[in-house]
Amino acid sequence: MEKFEINILGCGSALPTTRHFPSSQVINFRDKLFMIDCGEGSQLQFRKSKIKFSRLNHIFISHLHGDHCFGLIGLISTFSLLGRTATLHIYAHKDLKMILQPQLDYFCKGMTYEVEFHDINTNSSDVIYEDRSLSVSTIPLKHRIPTCGFLFQEKPALRHIKREMIDRYSIPIAYINCIKNGYDFITEDGETIPNDALTSDPEPTRKYAYCSDTKYNPSIIDQIRGCNLLFHEATFAESDKKRAEETFHTTTKQAASIANDANVKRLIIGHFSARYEQEELLLDEAKTIFEETILAKENLKINL
Amino acid sequence: MEKFEINILGCGSALPTTRHFPSSQVINFRDKLFMIDCGEGSQLQFRKSKIKFSRLNHIFISHLHGDHCFGLIGLISTFSLLGRTATLHIYAHKDLKMILQPQLDYFCKGMTYEVEFHDINTNSSDVIYEDRSLSVSTIPLKHRIPTCGFLFQEKPALRHIKREMIDRYSIPIAYINCIKNGYDFITEDGETIPNDALTSDPEPTRKYAYCSDTKYNPSIIDQIRGCNLLFHEATFAESDKKRAEETFHTTTKQAASIANDANVKRLIIGHFSARYEQEELLLDEAKTIFEETILAKENLKINL
Repeated sequence: MEKFEINILGCGSALPTTRHFPSSQVINFRDKLFMIDCGEGSQLQFRKSKIKFSRLNHIFISHLHGDHCFGLIGLISTFSLLGRTATLHIYAHKDLKMILQPQLDYFCKGMTYEVEFHDINTNSSDVIYEDRSLSVSTIPLKHRIPTCGFLFQEKPALRHIKREMIDRYSIPIAYINCIKNGYDFITEDGETIPNDALTSDPEPTRKYAYCSDTKYNPSIIDQIRGCNLLFHEATFAESDKKRAEETFHTTTKQAASIANDANVKRLIIGHFSARYEQEELLLDEAKTIFEETILAKENLKINL
Repeated sequence: MEKFEINILGCGSALPTTRHFPSSQVINFRDKLFMIDCGEGSQLQFRKSKIKFSRLNHIFISHLHGDHCFGLIGLISTFSLLGRTATLHIYAHKDLKMILQPQLDYFCKGMTYEVEFHDINTNSSDVIYEDRSLSVSTIPLKHRIPTCGFLFQEKPALRHIKREMIDRYSIPIAYINCIKNGYDFITEDGETIPNDALTSDPEPTRKYAYCSDTKYNPSIIDQIRGCNLLFHEATFAESDKKRAEETFHTTTKQAASIANDANVKRLIIGHFSARYEQEELLLDEAKTIFEETILAKENLKINL
């Protein structure tokens, strides 16, 4: 299987604790790196993770609360000190550019590379990044300010050709790619060999959804259905449900019921409020609804 | 002795490493806290240090390079989340307000307290903070942008009154403070008792100097003479002296010779370049010139 790996750099919420860094993750998809959110200290965590710094070209910011973006200026500035040349693409609410550009102009004079800002519309599900093997779409969320999650979706791979069939029907090399793409083969005698006989199914495609910050929002279920892994915030325990509502956050059981209703394979909860010293209790609550739940923690790496 | 304690939160330089946080220190002087510089992650280190967050009212920023100030927005924003009410005073080059205010307006709507910016002139030695027992002055430094260090100077304490003399001469309570301030006492018989006979010397006053970032700059020696502790940057080893000159930084031996010429009691070196994995070598170099040298490191606490 090609690499599709989630690295948790930070999974705390706004108030700093000695247990957590604020939100940030790095997705390693076939050795291309994608960052989601960039709270203060993300570059330090990134360095510690030993993931190759220079492979990061795309950063997705869910919303403009400080614990999701205060680490950007430090990271961008470090890249310039390191002499980076590749353009860095940042996908975020349009206000980010307005806030960050004056800082770049002041602190990063003589930048060695370009930062390109891509405005995202947090109200609709749009494909905001796409290459040959991956697409990234926004997931509209409901928080106190415009916010979206991100769906990382692997594109279908080519079908596997059966080696022995190439010999049996003397299939010319020029046809192989068409057959991998699903076409039948017609022999010199005019016989049609159906694609099914020539190929087997490729690996199933994988999906990762990141949903933070948001209040309980079942309208995302259709979009994230069947994900291999769902990261969902669970800022609060069930006993603090009222506080979750007031602050537009989710409780453990609400996150788990989203996972359950969307029939995802695994759920990882994070963005824990500083008030909980025993996060195992949060896990236990979520598991009463959705057994395949794990707790996010710093430096955790999950392979899909 | 009253508390006068230096807490190192970070002592790396601009490039993040797994060994160091960027520059930040907290001075605990008689349970009032003063921060010097505030690199990214300072609030996390502050939290870890268990020093009481809410006692910090004054932050001094040496210069506006990112590794000395990128942590401010996070710290300020956290204070607001915690419902702080006391005004926070920030002493820095005037550009800081221009850079930080738009971020405060955007990220810290409904702030629970005021941030007051105090412009400092990095070209002269001015007293920028003063209370009954402490003064803080700027130390002009030579870096690529306007930069100054800070001299924390304890004010002379009152003289110690000898208890037995109060009884012997029946000194009224109302006179005690005058005598502690150095006045003689005249008895009812008109006899003058000299202050020397009534009091003993107070503890000697203590001084701490922070000098980072700067190229080798002997013009600071007069101002820091006799300090109990000098923090001086030693970004580079002696073998990288040329690089130190180019980047307006100091080498180990240069820092040590400043300490030596200023006749300070102890030297602590820091702001290490990311290139040195074995910092003991930096220490050894400095010690060839000034024996009483120690290496800064995160979470180190030094009592003066």
